[in-house]
Amino acid sequence: MLSLEYIQEVIKQRIVELDLAKNPAELYDPIRYTLSLGGKRLRPALCLIACDSFNGDLKRALDPAVGIEIFHNFTLLHDDIMDEAPIRRGKPTVHKKWNRNVAILSGDTMMALAYEYILKAPEEIRTNVFSVFNKTAIEVCEGQQYDMTFEAQSSVSLNEYIAMIRLKTAVLIAASLKIGALIGGASVLAADQLYSFGENIGIAFQLKDDLLDAFSDENKFGKTHGGDIISNKKTFLYIKAFEIAKGKNLEELTRLYSKSMCDANEKIEEVIRIYEKLNIRQLAENEIKTYSQKALTILENLDINMLHKSILKNIAGQLDSRKY
Amino acid sequence: MLSLEYIQEVIKQRIVELDLAKNPAELYDPIRYTLSLGGKRLRPALCLIACDSFNGDLKRALDPAVGIEIFHNFTLLHDDIMDEAPIRRGKPTVHKKWNRNVAILSGDTMMALAYEYILKAPEEIRTNVFSVFNKTAIEVCEGQQYDMTFEAQSSVSLNEYIAMIRLKTAVLIAASLKIGALIGGASVLAADQLYSFGENIGIAFQLKDDLLDAFSDENKFGKTHGGDIISNKKTFLYIKAFEIAKGKNLEELTRLYSKSMCDANEKIEEVIRIYEKLNIRQLAENEIKTYSQKALTILENLDINMLHKSILKNIAGQLDSRKY
Repeated sequence: MLSLEYIQEVIKQRIVELDLAKNPAELYDPIRYTLSLGGKRLRPALCLIACDSFNGDLKRALDPAVGIEIFHNFTLLHDDIMDEAPIRRGKPTVHKKWNRNVAILSGDTMMALAYEYILKAPEEIRTNVFSVFNKTAIEVCEGQQYDMTFEAQSSVSLNEYIAMIRLKTAVLIAASLKIGALIGGASVLAADQLYSFGENIGIAFQLKDDLLDAFSDENKFGKTHGGDIISNKKTFLYIKAFEIAKGKNLEELTRLYSKSMCDANEKIEEVIRIYEKLNIRQLAENEIKTYSQKALTILENLDINMLHKSILKNIAGQLDSRKY
Repeated sequence: MLSLEYIQEVIKQRIVELDLAKNPAELYDPIRYTLSLGGKRLRPALCLIACDSFNGDLKRALDPAVGIEIFHNFTLLHDDIMDEAPIRRGKPTVHKKWNRNVAILSGDTMMALAYEYILKAPEEIRTNVFSVFNKTAIEVCEGQQYDMTFEAQSSVSLNEYIAMIRLKTAVLIAASLKIGALIGGASVLAADQLYSFGENIGIAFQLKDDLLDAFSDENKFGKTHGGDIISNKKTFLYIKAFEIAKGKNLEELTRLYSKSMCDANEKIEEVIRIYEKLNIRQLAENEIKTYSQKALTILENLDINMLHKSILKNIAGQLDSRKY
């Protein structure tokens, strides 16, 4: 019987078997390193499950699914340079372990490798798969740019923020499902419904990431605790807090997020204390629930069997309930 | 009648007409800026001429040719970050005019745009065109990595250097010709012969670039004069000079290329003085001639008409005789 664990194992195996070149070592070692760091392999798993939902042959979707995972890891690699992030999945980022130029160039190479695998989609659907993927690749870049633009912008509305995380995070999750569905033989309508499902769980997923940055402990999550707070990142938490804070809380928040503030740990602690006073955690959880609920309603109306619905529902649920 | 000028005009027009998005401006403005800087449009021109050489319809090759030009400009953009180059085609580089992150991300987006246009190749040949292009894209990254690796390496042989510039510069010129030929309906044999022609003119082209860095005046060439010398880049000139220098010349070269040397202009002048003593300019010109001659021999044996041979020969000649 199909299960998420089985699918993740199939993907893991295919990634281990990737026949990457050895030289130049400074180019391919960081690629091997990046791909070996693991992660949930969420996007390729969704791609394969979507394919199976329409009784498609998993083997036909496997290489494009791996292409999506390589692309995703490429975006993380370049984002980490831009965000100056020291840690990814509990390990040093490529630009820290090697250097910035190695990170730029091995990322570029991963992007080309991603296309290599995407274009292994079955011939009769290859052009469609490519169109969905390439539109998405460009949107992901746009999302990352909005994310950086917002850093320099004095204020960002919640709508702008949601539009940004839709591009930066949700569309690739959505495209993974749509590509799998198309390869599996789904109608355009059904593939688009799965895309919408993916958009909504993707937004919920990113909002949960925002929450975990502030409220998780570092080891479990594999990132620096409070990294968003240190870098004054305008996350859902930040925007919501500034939206509702008044009087002394607002003054404090403004002071804490001003550039003169130096002690990182003190800043994180104090910001979180205000977040808690303002009930930001609960408000974020409500927002996450709204998007998850939208996703589940779309899923209910989708014409696929109960088993696949339940697997997709479980994945959405797991993303949602990741522990602090 | 077909002419290089006509072809360059067609490409220029198509690039002006590219329907790029407006927002986010920080992403698309640098792309528009990069593509508007011009240059000879050598690669797309070769692609179209190759297509025409086999009586192919130019319109079918135009978008893939533009895709190649976008890809080429993407590589320049990212290379300029890695090399910390301040000027490109006489204008500030993107990472100088905007910033490093903007340059990384607008480069990534250009890479996705390049694929968008490459994949507009006619359907019956699309997969072949993609294979040639993607293999090349990966090789170009490998070439850039070898280039960076050589910087940190104590010595580099001439063979290693030629292998590096083949990857970094020549294969994209070669692939431009091969892709055009394939779209034009050439046999695999003929397309491969044009590829070899391109490899040889590409190597000659890069060797000429090495020469121009040391022996051109800045305004004509649009780059910083002596940039390779300042950054201790192991070009043909450098490698050849260290190969043949003896006694006092070798001592002087070693001193000039040591890290303690500070005054940039003095360094450039003194290095060039030694290059002249060692006859390096003539040796480089001989090497360029060797590769040009190989290219012309391949061209002679190619089964295309005299007009196309003469256009391709002219282009090779023009690259070769670029003025100091």
